[in-house]
Amino acid sequence: MKWKRSERLVDMTHYLLEHPQQLIPLTFFAESYQSAKSSISEDLSIVKDTFEERGIGHLITVPGAAGGVKYIPKVPEESAKKVITELIKELSHSDRLLPGGYLFMTDLLGNPELINKVGKVFASAFCDQEIDVIMTVATKGISIAHAIARHLNVPVVVVRRDNKVTEGSTVSINYVSGSSRRIQTMVLSKRSMKSGQRVLITDDFMKVGGTMNGMKNLLEEFDCTLAGIAVLVEAEHPDERLVDDYYSLVKLREVNEKDRTIELTEGNYFSKGGN
Amino acid sequence: MKWKRSERLVDMTHYLLEHPQQLIPLTFFAESYQSAKSSISEDLSIVKDTFEERGIGHLITVPGAAGGVKYIPKVPEESAKKVITELIKELSHSDRLLPGGYLFMTDLLGNPELINKVGKVFASAFCDQEIDVIMTVATKGISIAHAIARHLNVPVVVVRRDNKVTEGSTVSINYVSGSSRRIQTMVLSKRSMKSGQRVLITDDFMKVGGTMNGMKNLLEEFDCTLAGIAVLVEAEHPDERLVDDYYSLVKLREVNEKDRTIELTEGNYFSKGGN
Repeated sequence: MKWKRSERLVDMTHYLLEHPQQLIPLTFFAESYQSAKSSISEDLSIVKDTFEERGIGHLITVPGAAGGVKYIPKVPEESAKKVITELIKELSHSDRLLPGGYLFMTDLLGNPELINKVGKVFASAFCDQEIDVIMTVATKGISIAHAIARHLNVPVVVVRRDNKVTEGSTVSINYVSGSSRRIQTMVLSKRSMKSGQRVLITDDFMKVGGTMNGMKNLLEEFDCTLAGIAVLVEAEHPDERLVDDYYSLVKLREVNEKDRTIELTEGNYFSKGGN
Repeated sequence: MKWKRSERLVDMTHYLLEHPQQLIPLTFFAESYQSAKSSISEDLSIVKDTFEERGIGHLITVPGAAGGVKYIPKVPEESAKKVITELIKELSHSDRLLPGGYLFMTDLLGNPELINKVGKVFASAFCDQEIDVIMTVATKGISIAHAIARHLNVPVVVVRRDNKVTEGSTVSINYVSGSSRRIQTMVLSKRSMKSGQRVLITDDFMKVGGTMNGMKNLLEEFDCTLAGIAVLVEAEHPDERLVDDYYSLVKLREVNEKDRTIELTEGNYFSKGGN
């Protein structure tokens, strides 16, 4: 069956969106649609222009025999701002205040549409870098890690607090939690990473950065390198932070438990050059 | 700016894929592209035909003033079979065998492309049903839950083993784990669900079904209804199962620790009419 351009465009758009950061040879599309490579090239230039125009991402064409096309998810600054504004609005509700000045965020982390957008915003900041793995710690960072991973097309590894038989052999470290200064344990399956991999660490919340620092130490045990840190909400903190090179979307400035007010601002995403 | 059909098709495809199970008024597209509703209708019929032809899903058109178009992710039987075959092939490697006859699956649960496909296969089985929430238990089911949730456009709630301050007020139950007959605890934030919601439960592995049964009991505490159960791998088990109405993709028939062999077959997905 020969495909019409209109049908090719629909199917090609779906295929590219489902295969981010993967080089797809033009022959793949040419064979799939029984069409000449020149027609496929024209199709791709329409897709490319529309993706740019609508802020969906970039299409990069690699010429030559080993070439092809690659979809790079990347949101424009304006879309990233919208996501951050939405987060701040959602998090500002006073009924999110929990004892001890914590914020209830679990519902947001379970909202697939919002978390998908958050993932794309973080993926945009790292789309030009070499990332091999996304690492997070159980439980709350997992949805963010997967949302980023989908756009960067890399696996997620989850650090645990406890050892479980289903993880096989594990590497375990002790670290000092930032705020409470308690000794805690982190466990990661030995099969999770290979030495030399570049790892992006993510979590939903960061205060002093003790947990992030723990994950950094864990990376060393695996001979892996830190490629970046992405945190949804960072809290203002008087003590010195244990990590400094990170991206945050939202900053929790102050919580007043008596008046039940929450003061939030934009995180460092744009000032770090995330977009 | 007036949009060409080719550009509209690319952008519309992206928009629909990002907004599954949502009714989008034709006027939304008409205004967005400065085009007549009749042109938008023609565009949508091209998208619809291509989505059907390529097994991407259905486009349902609701006529009338309050009408619009809705994208329903649904994979054809052939694609579901492919995903199941891929899972069986991956899980059959003897180096996945862990002490006690367990299988190492953590890497598969962290593979975003594979888990996205698994999520779409499960979402296909439930695409015509009313589902309000997807529930799973920390930690390993979370990636599957989010993958299903994205295609059904509903939130994920995560049951925990322990209480944490960031969850706010919680409801806690005790239950008997299926295989070890130990009393265990499950905790869920009170804000997670509203009474009357229909809940799809999912997990990566099921033996006797003790954990699933625990989640079922937890639903009752919230006055919610079980809408279905989706499990990636079920294990053959001599004892009677605590839950009977579930979908599984893979069945673990036998593990021989001495010979280091793993026997896997297709789960009940197709016999249950999942597709």
